[in-house]
Amino acid sequence: MHTDSAAEPRLAGGPATGLVAALDIGGTKIAGALVDDTGRIRVRVQRPTPAREDGETVMRTVEDVLAGLAASPLWPGAGAVGIGSAGPVDAFRGTVSPVNVPGWRGFPLVERVHRATGGRPVTLVGDGVAMTAAEHWLGAARGHDNALCLVVSTGVGGGLVLDGRVHPGPTGNAGHLGHISVDLDGEPCACGGRGCVERLASGPHIARRALENGWRPGPDGDTSAAAVAAAARAGDPVALDSFDRAARALAAGIAATATLVEVDIAVIGGGVAGAGEILFGPLRRHLATYATLSFVRGLTAVPARTGTDAGLLGAAAAARTPRA
Amino acid sequence: MHTDSAAEPRLAGGPATGLVAALDIGGTKIAGALVDDTGRIRVRVQRPTPAREDGETVMRTVEDVLAGLAASPLWPGAGAVGIGSAGPVDAFRGTVSPVNVPGWRGFPLVERVHRATGGRPVTLVGDGVAMTAAEHWLGAARGHDNALCLVVSTGVGGGLVLDGRVHPGPTGNAGHLGHISVDLDGEPCACGGRGCVERLASGPHIARRALENGWRPGPDGDTSAAAVAAAARAGDPVALDSFDRAARALAAGIAATATLVEVDIAVIGGGVAGAGEILFGPLRRHLATYATLSFVRGLTAVPARTGTDAGLLGAAAAARTPRA
Repeated sequence: MHTDSAAEPRLAGGPATGLVAALDIGGTKIAGALVDDTGRIRVRVQRPTPAREDGETVMRTVEDVLAGLAASPLWPGAGAVGIGSAGPVDAFRGTVSPVNVPGWRGFPLVERVHRATGGRPVTLVGDGVAMTAAEHWLGAARGHDNALCLVVSTGVGGGLVLDGRVHPGPTGNAGHLGHISVDLDGEPCACGGRGCVERLASGPHIARRALENGWRPGPDGDTSAAAVAAAARAGDPVALDSFDRAARALAAGIAATATLVEVDIAVIGGGVAGAGEILFGPLRRHLATYATLSFVRGLTAVPARTGTDAGLLGAAAAARTPRA
Repeated sequence: MHTDSAAEPRLAGGPATGLVAALDIGGTKIAGALVDDTGRIRVRVQRPTPAREDGETVMRTVEDVLAGLAASPLWPGAGAVGIGSAGPVDAFRGTVSPVNVPGWRGFPLVERVHRATGGRPVTLVGDGVAMTAAEHWLGAARGHDNALCLVVSTGVGGGLVLDGRVHPGPTGNAGHLGHISVDLDGEPCACGGRGCVERLASGPHIARRALENGWRPGPDGDTSAAAVAAAARAGDPVALDSFDRAARALAAGIAATATLVEVDIAVIGGGVAGAGEILFGPLRRHLATYATLSFVRGLTAVPARTGTDAGLLGAAAAARTPRA
């Protein structure tokens, strides 16, 4: 079971100082790593998430990933564990309830990982907060004391840096930009709200809106947001409009965040951000509409830099700065 | 000039320990006080703001208020000065640019008050942050480590408590809920944005909307939000609808704030909050629509307690906990 080739720990060279163990838990994969104090991933293990299985089966996959890490000669040097998990999480209780892993509802992940790692201290944050910790440590938010970091993908998540430190909030969910309403009379959202940023700006909604307005995929039948982005790049007006609408919603949400907590930079990663200027061009234009007060006019929006390792690097960063 | 009877310092009894001087600067009045460490106002001086005069004339009124405080035998015990000012402010630069005081644009208030008070340390915050500091110290946010406090009046302002401390942000404007957009395609706002909370929920906009939809004032011709609230209390459906709309906008904005920074209470003061259940009833109902994620579902909304002294008490609180 789950014996894909990525299961073999890979060992990079050089001294490994200040190691921590990191877990990145999502609906598609569960990844683990040993990360040194320069942010270098020294050992990496990955398994597909058995997302439709019961909770104990999912936990066995986590234990399997941890066993892969423990097989490394570097393992004894890793003194703490950080977890970035798909949300919602409850860092206060140490539990997770990832939307895409129905077998885990209020699952006591911190306690289970604590036991599975010989009693190591465990720090849990949501995946948006983890990505933010990674970008603040090693990416585009480095050196910024007040920043918003976003993942725009199947969903829209995020996290905050305030006064120079990642601000997870009491339960580890702060910065959850995807479910703030920017259209109070808008379409119902899966969360129960209306007009949420995610309902307007996520990849599936960009694609849905393009299709509803007459965009048709190419011969390969690809109806992803990436295909809409390709059509937009070729000048398709419906595809351009759908990205413009997503950019407007993100701009309203980012400006709201800046107005509320005075961030000066928005760092955006995730698949939809891969559209590049198709997204960032209209986003910057719309920010000028919504970020109006003197103290937010300098706000900038830039692409994330830590890529697919953001979750692991952010979990490692969280392990390094555990909460009181 | 400006010699109204409130100019006479009034002295309350009892020991005065841990005194600070407080200034509350608005478009209508400039108030000063000496406040002790229990939050008791021991001396109070107030002048009308010469809001249409040039900047130096406004400053002379501030100096006049300070001279009134300095005439008190308690003045030597006041070691620091806190200022809460109508915004925007720039706490980083020590300047203020109150919308309703055109003679002050980038006015170096901190430096001027520093000089006028014999070199005392001066801390500046925006009026929304000051009200928040007051409610956290002595009012409805007391004991809450994460709170949003709002003033809903001619405008809509606010402030945040995060991790147990008032969070003014780098320039002292954080929590500025009035100018976040909850209706991205909505009406243009005076700030340049669209669909701002203030454009939907301030007193003048509650009254405007009621009038546009057919509400008519009584024989006294009073078209204030308070008159609309009275009509709503008497069952007028148009008046009720206008408050409902304001409550919906506030709910969307409060829920957005909770989703972004995990506050568990919203404390609401200002004239519009004086409508009581006419506002709070629909507000609580709409919060259930917009505050959907598990970590914000416990969010409550309550009236503020510090009343018209909020500005002075908040300025005093700011002087007590100056920023690094």
